[in-house]
Amino acid sequence: MPSSRSGLHVRASAEMREDRPLRLGMVGGGLGAFIGAVHRSAARLDNRFDLVAGALSDKPDEAQESARMLRIAPDRAYMTFEEMAEVESGRADGIDVVSIVTPNHLHFAIGKAFAEKGIHVICDKPLAVSLEQGRTLARIVDKVGIVFCVTHNYTGYPMVREARALVAAGELGSIRSVRVSYSQQWLTDALEQTDNRQAKWRQDPALGGPAGCIGDIGSHAYSLAAFVTGLELESVCAELTTFVSGRRVDDHAQVMLRYEGGARGLLWASQVAPGEDQNLELAVYGKFGGLVWRHEAPDRLTVTRYGDRPQILTRGGPGMSESAARASRLPAGLPEGYFECFANLYSDVSETIIAQIGGAPLSTTHFPSIEDGVKVLEFIDASLRSSHAGATWTRPT
Amino acid sequence: MPSSRSGLHVRASAEMREDRPLRLGMVGGGLGAFIGAVHRSAARLDNRFDLVAGALSDKPDEAQESARMLRIAPDRAYMTFEEMAEVESGRADGIDVVSIVTPNHLHFAIGKAFAEKGIHVICDKPLAVSLEQGRTLARIVDKVGIVFCVTHNYTGYPMVREARALVAAGELGSIRSVRVSYSQQWLTDALEQTDNRQAKWRQDPALGGPAGCIGDIGSHAYSLAAFVTGLELESVCAELTTFVSGRRVDDHAQVMLRYEGGARGLLWASQVAPGEDQNLELAVYGKFGGLVWRHEAPDRLTVTRYGDRPQILTRGGPGMSESAARASRLPAGLPEGYFECFANLYSDVSETIIAQIGGAPLSTTHFPSIEDGVKVLEFIDASLRSSHAGATWTRPT
Amino acid sequence: MPSSRSGLHVRASAEMREDRPLRLGMVGGGLGAFIGAVHRSAARLDNRFDLVAGALSDKPDEAQESARMLRIAPDRAYMTFEEMAEVESGRADGIDVVSIVTPNHLHFAIGKAFAEKGIHVICDKPLAVSLEQGRTLARIVDKVGIVFCVTHNYTGYPMVREARALVAAGELGSIRSVRVSYSQQWLTDALEQTDNRQAKWRQDPALGGPAGCIGDIGSHAYSLAAFVTGLELESVCAELTTFVSGRRVDDHAQVMLRYEGGARGLLWASQVAPGEDQNLELAVYGKFGGLVWRHEAPDRLTVTRYGDRPQILTRGGPGMSESAARASRLPAGLPEGYFECFANLYSDVSETIIAQIGGAPLSTTHFPSIEDGVKVLEFIDASLRSSHAGATWTRPT
Amino acid sequence: MPSSRSGLHVRASAEMREDRPLRLGMVGGGLGAFIGAVHRSAARLDNRFDLVAGALSDKPDEAQESARMLRIAPDRAYMTFEEMAEVESGRADGIDVVSIVTPNHLHFAIGKAFAEKGIHVICDKPLAVSLEQGRTLARIVDKVGIVFCVTHNYTGYPMVREARALVAAGELGSIRSVRVSYSQQWLTDALEQTDNRQAKWRQDPALGGPAGCIGDIGSHAYSLAAFVTGLELESVCAELTTFVSGRRVDDHAQVMLRYEGGARGLLWASQVAPGEDQNLELAVYGKFGGLVWRHEAPDRLTVTRYGDRPQILTRGGPGMSESAARASRLPAGLPEGYFECFANLYSDVSETIIAQIGGAPLSTTHFPSIEDGVKVLEFIDASLRSSHAGATWTRPT
Repeated sequence: MPSSRSGLHVRASAEMREDRPLRLGMVGGGLGAFIGAVHRSAARLDNRFDLVAGALSDKPDEAQESARMLRIAPDRAYMTFEEMAEVESGRADGIDVVSIVTPNHLHFAIGKAFAEKGIHVICDKPLAVSLEQGRTLARIVDKVGIVFCVTHNYTGYPMVREARALVAAGELGSIRSVRVSYSQQWLTDALEQTDNRQAKWRQDPALGGPAGCIGDIGSHAYSLAAFVTGLELESVCAELTTFVSGRRVDDHAQVMLRYEGGARGLLWASQVAPGEDQNLELAVYGKFGGLVWRHEAPDRLTVTRYGDRPQILTRGGPGMSESAARASRLPAGLPEGYFECFANLYSDVSETIIAQIGGAPLSTTHFPSIEDGVKVLEFIDASLRSSHAGATWTRPT
Repeated sequence: MPSSRSGLHVRASAEMREDRPLRLGMVGGGLGAFIGAVHRSAARLDNRFDLVAGALSDKPDEAQESARMLRIAPDRAYMTFEEMAEVESGRADGIDVVSIVTPNHLHFAIGKAFAEKGIHVICDKPLAVSLEQGRTLARIVDKVGIVFCVTHNYTGYPMVREARALVAAGELGSIRSVRVSYSQQWLTDALEQTDNRQAKWRQDPALGGPAGCIGDIGSHAYSLAAFVTGLELESVCAELTTFVSGRRVDDHAQVMLRYEGGARGLLWASQVAPGEDQNLELAVYGKFGGLVWRHEAPDRLTVTRYGDRPQILTRGGPGMSESAARASRLPAGLPEGYFECFANLYSDVSETIIAQIGGAPLSTTHFPSIEDGVKVLEFIDASLRSSHAGATWTRPT
Repeated sequence: MPSSRSGLHVRASAEMREDRPLRLGMVGGGLGAFIGAVHRSAARLDNRFDLVAGALSDKPDEAQESARMLRIAPDRAYMTFEEMAEVESGRADGIDVVSIVTPNHLHFAIGKAFAEKGIHVICDKPLAVSLEQGRTLARIVDKVGIVFCVTHNYTGYPMVREARALVAAGELGSIRSVRVSYSQQWLTDALEQTDNRQAKWRQDPALGGPAGCIGDIGSHAYSLAAFVTGLELESVCAELTTFVSGRRVDDHAQVMLRYEGGARGLLWASQVAPGEDQNLELAVYGKFGGLVWRHEAPDRLTVTRYGDRPQILTRGGPGMSESAARASRLPAGLPEGYFECFANLYSDVSETIIAQIGGAPLSTTHFPSIEDGVKVLEFIDASLRSSHAGATWTRPT
Repeated sequence: MPSSRSGLHVRASAEMREDRPLRLGMVGGGLGAFIGAVHRSAARLDNRFDLVAGALSDKPDEAQESARMLRIAPDRAYMTFEEMAEVESGRADGIDVVSIVTPNHLHFAIGKAFAEKGIHVICDKPLAVSLEQGRTLARIVDKVGIVFCVTHNYTGYPMVREARALVAAGELGSIRSVRVSYSQQWLTDALEQTDNRQAKWRQDPALGGPAGCIGDIGSHAYSLAAFVTGLELESVCAELTTFVSGRRVDDHAQVMLRYEGGARGLLWASQVAPGEDQNLELAVYGKFGGLVWRHEAPDRLTVTRYGDRPQILTRGGPGMSESAARASRLPAGLPEGYFECFANLYSDVSETIIAQIGGAPLSTTHFPSIEDGVKVLEFIDASLRSSHAGATWTRPT
């Protein structure tokens, strides 16, 4: 069994804790849901949350049945999120934090309900189905002072954080260009016309919102690039296309980006790319160096100083930054994956909330905040407007 | 967010369960341990175990402190494993299963103590420090009828199970040759002369046993090849070398294998291979086809029918076997890793125990049993004898 | 040594030939030039050309010296291309074909001079420094009826031809999207301000033309995508950027493409991408399947039919098309590279000329013709105009 | 088009030369042969040889026809190699060097015939079908003082030479272990029972010699490891297996090696490995560092200093050694392949002969000499004896 160099993977040792676990509630994520199970697994991994309450489905039977199978006490299996926010906020042992894992159109109302009760929120992405909703929610959150995380989860990969740390430290020099792409094949056919639940709500504007591919995975690509580079958007030229006939939202997105300060970006997102599964790739080039990260090998990062040889940075390997080390659990060579990157957001949130409970100031360094979520909505909104105008250059409002 | 084709990743949906969680105890794995945290994280991931008791350290202070931080009730934080076996087996709510995560030399005594009390066991590898110990324990286990899993954990990767299913289905034809290697760099220097705990006990024959590299990672390589091919060992020609001066066990192993029926194998294990981190690779070639699996990309498997094009099989992808699907949680393209492969052993054990509780016959199909653990000890024992005799052909006894 | 399955690599056996070698002349490519040596090596590889004449430099000393070192007879070492065209076209043993390997601004005049004498031409890319030049030349070539090849050389890779054959056969269904990128790092600094000859002329608009990166490597990316997909350009939205201060042409290009029929394309070309060396990648997605080709592993092609497993097609491997087989020399697994892909254009030209000499009709199937070269100029021209207009949608004229 | 940093790829500029081309003859390699065409293409690539004489087949018709197609003058198209050696050595313009590309059993007699006439020799591998033959020939060559190259061609790859230079410079420290493997699939079935010429003579002991896989590709693996590490063989434990029924020589080889000084090696060679095409891999580990080279990406080399990050060394990239630079023609990122590695041996031989003609002392640094060829025969001979004795440790004689 492998070496465990001290300091290289902080999170592993943090699995044993002084703190009490946080009490977690969940809205959505009942039987047959996909992302709810991911959130729960992520919450469990590092031993920091107890799932104690839920409004897991809008169908009462499913809500009850799901709660029972997740060992939630019957009196905390709610039929509506409104009731849950009301009751839980009144209990002495009420939930500390709620996870929102419903279709997109409900994020706003649910987020608002819990935020207003002072309950911290972890919300699946995108934050809302309109920029206006997002901004309204952000104002509420800001006023109430809760922790609010939007699960742009790819920012949780340790080597993505390493990339961010390298850019922040000036290792690449000023950034000149960014290329990011996210390709999937699962919507190559009209899957939404079958009984596939994931496809059905995503392709229904009333549930998923007006943004299709650009909202579902373009948002991941954009937030990944933003997280790593820290660049702010100046304008976009976006062309959103719907290739599958009968489909009501875009399934393919191509975007040119101008960042403040003159950097350029190119973003590709496609859900109709046969052969591709969650193929997310990021390349960042600066005056002094470049880096490439690929989701297919998330524990690695290739970094080149101009004029030197490319180096392979590995999670757990030599010279890893504090930032990446804090998100790492295993020695180099033992693969971490999607659950672990997701769990990093949960554990970051936990640390932040616990610090707040203990009177320490809030730190949101390590997870996408509601401000980050709003910026992604600004990107989506500008892209939709750009595309509707025939793919012309459009500024975020 | 990705597609969730029905049937492709059974384990995900099994996170919501009808069954009660199993009550888990742990021996070893206190503060500062490595593999104990892995076992606990694996046990949590699929929501099937509650850690309720432990004898987590042979130092009373550390045992108590560790238990507290893991939220184990004080009266179930034991100072010795003997006491724990005694008391827990007498409780109505006593542990169903115990995890043994101590240095190797204690596996036997602890395993015996719990087995004799009828408590199921999950034991880290290798099963014991001698073949005789292993066989004695196997006889006890067989008599008592408990579930006993040895965590040769690489057998838990879904695409390793896919490989096994392909071989079993005859897709490669009769197997002709196997090449397997496991390379690490962490013992390139005399790390055991620092304060590294992992290195210290492994390089001390009194704690880790007489087998160094061959026992620590050669065992993984051997068990992986055996799991995939089903081949039985006829004889070995092994050369174990100690490159680092002052070291008391081997740190490099090269082994030629003859399998029953005429297949040939070549096994390489090295802990002094700079640049390599947990680099485990397996290639299997038969009369009709071949396959290659690499730990660095565990979600993929390359399979070639002779005369056809190589195909890339992906976890969650088209045509995955029932066996791999049962061990899969996420759609294709979202990486699973080491915790997930480890969790598959835990969940397999859970399913087996629950079946037994429910009166169904025991099935040990999906995790390495004590018989498998004994076979690995036979390989280690024969390799040690072969090497001592100058690397001559040696049969297991 | 490896297998040689009959029919799999036609070009190897064609190294022994009935035909006489073609007499080759060269303009440019004297001492210290880069691409001239590539052309000559490519011409030699398949044993189909004898280099017998040259105007190798505009400096008389260098021209003479270079000719001598290339064993060109002194009376065929010309000081100007005009003289060379005049004299060679009058000799009974005059050159059959001329290679033009000068800086871009001379392509047109040289091409015209030889074409008008009825001498076949192989011209380095881009065809000319303006679309108008290119079209004028194309008219001349068309009238004279000579063979004219523009060395968009990446079309010479066998697996690129395989990709084209697959698309043409409808294996991917109608094409929906194309992603192509070409990244280099060599111009990250102002190399043109050193004595680097390659950089100097390329960054000088008077010699290299008004297009920098878009003309030098964007042209390769565009022509590769066009060759494989057969798609015709409808319009572009291009943003050309110059990141290095003092530089007079673009060093970074991002382009969105609309193809006739509704397909979408995204093109990235950068010469300021630290860590990247000739990193050319192409992905093509259609209704039924997708393919990916990468220059870093040119002998492979990954192809996926939607719903099936990805397959790895290898040069020399099972099921290779006639088109790829004709361009292949070695069995699968023995790498072919840049010289071989370049040589494929030369050998294609040779076959076409020999067919013409023998009275057979001209076939230009396998190399980029002057028409293809003009189409690339149309792309460059439209991109320059689009970028000058602020990156707006622009049609080729 | 890419950068051409001065000094990074010496061989490219050497294509223009002061020297006269060497006059080359060839024995074997007529119509339908595989390796003859490779030798000729390699000889042409760098413009240093003229093929002027040949005894290309033992069938007179084929010999004549082949010579004609290769534009060899009729009076230099010989029917026997004896005649060719006799006549050419008497001509003022006789061949400088002969290439021997016949089946293995003839290497000795042909090599002897030309060596005794003072004609330099390039001989395909293995040098001979017995160690005795090889040693006899080496004595003759030594006495006569000619240049004699055995085309263990993988030593010609620039990054293999880089690896050798790194080891020689002590970058890895003293070498502890070597792992090398060469896998092919082409003999998975009894191809020799079809009309495949390559398979037929290789599987016939009278033509190919008593060593099958171990001689055909095991020899490549062994010589590659020896070239890079400089280690000398102490003893082998080899198991050669014949899996395909009816086959008369081994088609699978597994060998453990002990090198002088205590290093250990493991060698795998298989021609019955479905899915593998010329899959040659080398890993070398020393006290301070390790390196990995793979034939599937021959232009790259991964090197790790223990404790540092892995670095990717690329042909043409930063920090390349003089030794690799001399064997390189193209800038980084433009792939070189099998023809180019082969051509490096030819050009090395050319440089050595020209130095000798000019009175400079012979240097054989850069190509496998007859001494190297004999050492490979010692390895093969010891492996055959070891295997016949049941895979016991055996010293070379």
